Amino acid sequence: MRHTAPQATGASMADDASSEMTAEQKKAMRDEKKKQKEAEKAAKEARKREEQEALKRKQDELEALSKDIEFLSVEEGHQPTQLFGTYKVIRSACASTGSGRTFTPIESLGTSLEGQHVWCRARVANVRGKGKAAFLVLRQMRGTAQALVEESDIVPRDMIKWISKEITAESIVDVFGLVKLAEVKSCTVSDVELFVSRLYLVSKADPLPFLLEDAARPAHVDGAHVLRDTRLDNRAIDLRVPAHKAIMRVQGGVCALFREHLSAKSFIEIHSPKLISGASEGGANVFQLDYFGLPACLAQSPQLYKQMAICADFERVFEIGHVFRAEKSNTHRHLTEFIGLDIEMQIDEHYMEVMRTLDHMFVAIFDGLTQHFRADLDTVAAQYPFEPLRYKPAGENIILEFPEGVRLLREAGYEIGDHDDMNTELERALGSIVKEKYDTDFFILCSFPSAVRPFYTMPSPTNPDYSNSFDVFIRGEEIVSGAQRIHVPEMLIERAKGCGIDLDTIKDYVDAFRYGAPPHGGAGVGLERVVMLYLALPNVRECCLFARDPKRLTP
Amino acid sequence: MRHTAPQATGASMADDASSEMTAEQKKAMRDEKKKQKEAEKAAKEARKREEQEALKRKQDELEALSKDIEFLSVEEGHQPTQLFGTYKVIRSACASTGSGRTFTPIESLGTSLEGQHVWCRARVANVRGKGKAAFLVLRQMRGTAQALVEESDIVPRDMIKWISKEITAESIVDVFGLVKLAEVKSCTVSDVELFVSRLYLVSKADPLPFLLEDAARPAHVDGAHVLRDTRLDNRAIDLRVPAHKAIMRVQGGVCALFREHLSAKSFIEIHSPKLISGASEGGANVFQLDYFGLPACLAQSPQLYKQMAICADFERVFEIGHVFRAEKSNTHRHLTEFIGLDIEMQIDEHYMEVMRTLDHMFVAIFDGLTQHFRADLDTVAAQYPFEPLRYKPAGENIILEFPEGVRLLREAGYEIGDHDDMNTELERALGSIVKEKYDTDFFILCSFPSAVRPFYTMPSPTNPDYSNSFDVFIRGEEIVSGAQRIHVPEMLIERAKGCGIDLDTIKDYVDAFRYGAPPHGGAGVGLERVVMLYLALPNVRECCLFARDPKRLTP
Repeated sequence: MRHTAPQATGASMADDASSEMTAEQKKAMRDEKKKQKEAEKAAKEARKREEQEALKRKQDELEALSKDIEFLSVEEGHQPTQLFGTYKVIRSACASTGSGRTFTPIESLGTSLEGQHVWCRARVANVRGKGKAAFLVLRQMRGTAQALVEESDIVPRDMIKWISKEITAESIVDVFGLVKLAEVKSCTVSDVELFVSRLYLVSKADPLPFLLEDAARPAHVDGAHVLRDTRLDNRAIDLRVPAHKAIMRVQGGVCALFREHLSAKSFIEIHSPKLISGASEGGANVFQLDYFGLPACLAQSPQLYKQMAICADFERVFEIGHVFRAEKSNTHRHLTEFIGLDIEMQIDEHYMEVMRTLDHMFVAIFDGLTQHFRADLDTVAAQYPFEPLRYKPAGENIILEFPEGVRLLREAGYEIGDHDDMNTELERALGSIVKEKYDTDFFILCSFPSAVRPFYTMPSPTNPDYSNSFDVFIRGEEIVSGAQRIHVPEMLIERAKGCGIDLDTIKDYVDAFRYGAPPHGGAGVGLERVVMLYLALPNVRECCLFARDPKRLTP
Repeated sequence: MRHTAPQATGASMADDASSEMTAEQKKAMRDEKKKQKEAEKAAKEARKREEQEALKRKQDELEALSKDIEFLSVEEGHQPTQLFGTYKVIRSACASTGSGRTFTPIESLGTSLEGQHVWCRARVANVRGKGKAAFLVLRQMRGTAQALVEESDIVPRDMIKWISKEITAESIVDVFGLVKLAEVKSCTVSDVELFVSRLYLVSKADPLPFLLEDAARPAHVDGAHVLRDTRLDNRAIDLRVPAHKAIMRVQGGVCALFREHLSAKSFIEIHSPKLISGASEGGANVFQLDYFGLPACLAQSPQLYKQMAICADFERVFEIGHVFRAEKSNTHRHLTEFIGLDIEMQIDEHYMEVMRTLDHMFVAIFDGLTQHFRADLDTVAAQYPFEPLRYKPAGENIILEFPEGVRLLREAGYEIGDHDDMNTELERALGSIVKEKYDTDFFILCSFPSAVRPFYTMPSPTNPDYSNSFDVFIRGEEIVSGAQRIHVPEMLIERAKGCGIDLDTIKDYVDAFRYGAPPHGGAGVGLERVVMLYLALPNVRECCLFARDPKRLTP
């Protein structure tokens, strides 16, 4: 309808008509325009007055507030009502109900708050003084926003000077300001900025060992980068990098999704002891210590204890707990202390039940990450670009028999014996072959040769050279080892003998199966490896809060 | 309408009328009754035939099935189709899709399954052979049910004999049987029993070190009881006692509710290292070990690391993890290894924010337990009767200042100095006083004397003799210690000096606060203590999967 209505195009018609207007008409029009301009100016001034009055009211409120709040008072010699300064140490000196201030998270700043005054407590990512103004970038969690402090009726020049002098990068500040529309390209909050009228220093930062922006710079982007070891030496600073914190959130997400999925499937959470009397996975690579005069070890896995829980009729258990390996492996994927996501479950008939449980569980984890951790995945990808993981729907993921894996590798020209273990190179090669053939980064390899599995692994019922065991792979790297376990004492003894294990050292373990033991199987997942491979990160140390390897015991 | 219709009361009218009936009428009536009885008999026989035919069909199906399922074949010399026997070791010999059998959980047996045939895999709680019949009590999780094997057309006497001879208590069996109505007083499944027609031994139990029924007998009930140490020495058996397993489920429930509540409040899950270079809580009571030639310790708490996470802007974190204390305390509430539920959070202004977070969190846990773990609580209470915990709604729980606690104790005649720590006796006394006065088993005591808290505790802003710290109590025992922490390096150094701590040993810790540190506080909860006190159990060792104390490193 609109294009046919003359009033809709009135403005252009008036322009066309103006050439035919009389001088009188023209004067009237000029007067009209002048009037309009004056009215606009008056309105603008009124708005400004209103704005300033609103701010004044806020300031007055704050001053009234300040009288009751010790922490808003600042260093000796300053008035508690001043607009800027360094807080006394915040130490619960105010009323226990607090000052009534609420802090707005940086991430939630946006056009919906336009024209409102807000308090923010945030870190200063950087600060620039520039004559009559200071620009700050505030950072909190995944969010950054621009804050502007401009000399005006309500912002004295002293304040700008003080900011330029006192506020260092990575200091924590409280700011009070007006949310105004703005286009800010360099911050995550890109549609508003904060016009600051009060600014207090909560905690001042010393000069940092490296610049956060260098630690946050993607490898493929030109500019300074920080060595991993330097970052890990200063991990509490390194973790302020949004992508590095996002990796930790993803780690927490994997744990939460693991638990959620298994709890819904009637798995019971357990916590098994880490101080044990004997090595849980054979004598090698174990940390030893003195336990009130007795020799003790740190558990290399919850293996024995989760199996004992099954013997105690827990039916299905999971544990998220520390695993300790005194292994001198300085690779991209080995840690001396990591988090094991362990499961153990009764099986009715076949260890396929365990593999299918893992298949469903991992799909729930992968799906859950993309559904509920989108922002974190994007934050990681911005610094460490990665291809999303390819996998099949639950219950449909690829399960290959070991001999089939060997066949595929040989077809591709790799050499491997029938009963050899696969090294990292072969694992990666198999991963590529499977990706090519089945379009998946996620698969299970089962029926491993008995020779390369622990003694407690149930041998195959048809060929003792193979076993009821499996590994799970992501992007061609092993993240899970699992198997059906031997639940018959005599069989366990026979296998242990065959593996040359001293029977005395496993007596308690063997005896645990003498009072009726259900058939069962389980698996151990390396949390940090799952995170590393899901995100296609180059090193497992990026996926720990504080990594431990043979050369690193601190921080 | 019904009460006015004569046909509705026909039966009673006929009875009244019978006295007036003729002989002929009476004969007709007798004939009618006879006919009815015959019809009933015929129907009953038909039902029985039908039942037997249904069973026969099932048996035939099973025989057909058996041919394909290796695990249903039994020991050498037996036919795979036989009705009873010992399985070969179940080791994934069947098709990987399984036999298609589904096992019905004991707990779900009931009248709704009447007349149906089911498979159950369960433990034999006890077995009695009695001439032509064998009675078994089957146990699985919280459920027990009676199974009857009676000589009949389909159950040969040999089967009864074999059961009496081969099936030992605590063995695991597969049974196939008909669900029939019955009144069974001694089992949790009280309205049906299982008429067994097939029974296979999955795993045979050796004689046990103690009877499970003795370990399950409430302390106040006459009969044999098993010493705690004997039970703990055989914990994999002891945990089969339904109440003992229920305690572990409650433990898992506390963890799940803790995480659920905190995750919803934007807390991030972390896992901090347990292998550390220095003692986390001062030099005493620490397990030491060799770390590739360097001296290392086991973390006594995640204190430093959760504070570093706060310095890295995680804002709010929680951890569920192992805590190690080389403390020679042989009490009912000390362990050398336990699970810490730790939180640490930025505070805006006051450590009340931490206390209120805990108040809300514990109420969520307590409420969640009663809502979602009713069956487990009932199972525990059946063996260990306890009064439900009294507490206030979230946000309304009692927070007492330490001096007020001292005043209440003195009023009640106890002696305590102004700045003394409270021993167990005083804690219990205060618990009683608070219970009496406020009708609650749950409260927080805050503003502890500085002298009895760690050096990193923020001193009170008004009186340096006191600190911004607190303990949480359940039933008069401490379960949580928490505080505002010092976030200013200079202040930390001053306090450490005052406490006589060697500054060299805490340099890394102090330095962590030099790059801008937000005000923060936190707390550590002892998981096993919470479970013990919520359930009013006498000993924390009942609340661990496998307890560790100065005298116990196994199993």
